[in-house]
Amino acid sequence: MSFILGLCQMIVEKDKQANLRKAESMIREAANRGAEMISLPEIFNCPYSNKFFREYAEDEQGQTVKLLSSLAKELAVYLIGGSIPEIEDDKIYNASFIFDREGKIIGKHRKIHMFDIALAGGISMKESDILTAGETMTLVDTEFGKIGVAICYDVRFPELIRNMTLAGAKLIVLPAAFTLLTGVSHWDITMRARALDNQVFFAAVSPARDPNGYYQAYGHSCIATPFGEFCARTDTRESIVLGEIDFEYMESIREQLPLLKHRRPEVYRQAAEQDYYGGK
Amino acid sequence: MSFILGLCQMIVEKDKQANLRKAESMIREAANRGAEMISLPEIFNCPYSNKFFREYAEDEQGQTVKLLSSLAKELAVYLIGGSIPEIEDDKIYNASFIFDREGKIIGKHRKIHMFDIALAGGISMKESDILTAGETMTLVDTEFGKIGVAICYDVRFPELIRNMTLAGAKLIVLPAAFTLLTGVSHWDITMRARALDNQVFFAAVSPARDPNGYYQAYGHSCIATPFGEFCARTDTRESIVLGEIDFEYMESIREQLPLLKHRRPEVYRQAAEQDYYGGK
Repeated sequence: MSFILGLCQMIVEKDKQANLRKAESMIREAANRGAEMISLPEIFNCPYSNKFFREYAEDEQGQTVKLLSSLAKELAVYLIGGSIPEIEDDKIYNASFIFDREGKIIGKHRKIHMFDIALAGGISMKESDILTAGETMTLVDTEFGKIGVAICYDVRFPELIRNMTLAGAKLIVLPAAFTLLTGVSHWDITMRARALDNQVFFAAVSPARDPNGYYQAYGHSCIATPFGEFCARTDTRESIVLGEIDFEYMESIREQLPLLKHRRPEVYRQAAEQDYYGGK
Repeated sequence: MSFILGLCQMIVEKDKQANLRKAESMIREAANRGAEMISLPEIFNCPYSNKFFREYAEDEQGQTVKLLSSLAKELAVYLIGGSIPEIEDDKIYNASFIFDREGKIIGKHRKIHMFDIALAGGISMKESDILTAGETMTLVDTEFGKIGVAICYDVRFPELIRNMTLAGAKLIVLPAAFTLLTGVSHWDITMRARALDNQVFFAAVSPARDPNGYYQAYGHSCIATPFGEFCARTDTRESIVLGEIDFEYMESIREQLPLLKHRRPEVYRQAAEQDYYGGK
């Protein structure tokens, strides 16, 4: 069973309504071009900056979720709503809403790992100043099988992606907005390695790079195969990435090179009792 | 604190004595060029083929271990003895002996994951037909800090490398003999991803490619930094790779991008109780 996945690498600007219009037009175009599942990038309705998250935050009754739900239903596609600042009980999350072909919310991922970094050269970010972290991994059931959703910095933690795989995810979609520096150095190998190690399809969806924007995203939205190769990857510009997700190919890779079958959990657990989850 | 690590990418041939002479000369050359820690490749004294493992197998009293011990002592270097077929109680292991500057065995790693694959195109191998798998991860204490040792296919399992990191390994050395196909597709990204995700130095030591040999190894022995970049990497030919292992640089990477600090073990464990170590 195979289907077309579409990734909308859109420019995110300051005007929320313009962002929603852009998301809508790219979702429509991806559907027109045959995508049955479509994803937006991380924080697609708001500039990626702590100072905007509270102002732009919405809840499940908000305009953004309503728009995405109605688009999923009208176009009869699965829709991974990138992520938006979500507010609940006065807490703000970096959250991805996931919709089925009827526009129903079938899952919501709240970013688990807060991006608190200070790179030499001046790039720094401290999401935890304003955002609250999620507490669980996210899988949704679709007619194609289980799909995992994580957000950006979550991908840095191989444990999470492994757990999603062992729980049955065959495709993992990652709305993500890497910086230029970490993008150049780490984007390609991280996406390919997660796909390869777990023998899943792995898709990463970035905003397009906007030289005038608040945040310079790396771009290069891509789909990596269970053999660790890209089957689709764009550059930095606004564009739609389309790729075939073919789970029969995945099964053939898992038969030829049975990594998941060759795991030695009893050996890892032995070490784990002392170290893996030990200390903090 | 930094030191030079030397990797001996040697051609492995059918004649065991020639292999031992080659290993000795390359170890001497690496030491002359300033290496304080030196590693040989996987199965360096024997052709990499099930049909030779029993015939070439030795125990801790054998010629190979004696030679390596005396070289480590004479040259006053740490020596990671690639790997050899080891025999104990009639069982054969793919084992790496590790020596300190006095020539004392300070650790031994037995390959944990058996390479049993059948790739489309005809490349197949079934180590488990003749080899017995090891049961524990391997770390040794050195004056530079803890060093982890794993062998080839062990690297495919991110759990193992993560456990080694959490147990304190700052450098992981992997004698390895990837095939041409998996080498081209997976060698670079796997080595870089393990280094990057765990923010350790990661060194992989392959045999050189010998067009007339029993086994076509990928070559490309390399050292990846805690930022996921290569600081040294060779081609397919017989050669010595030298690279600086600088743990202050490692610490600065870990401060700028605190991946290990940002792990969420409580979230992984939650999933783990159901899935990660679940099943068998």
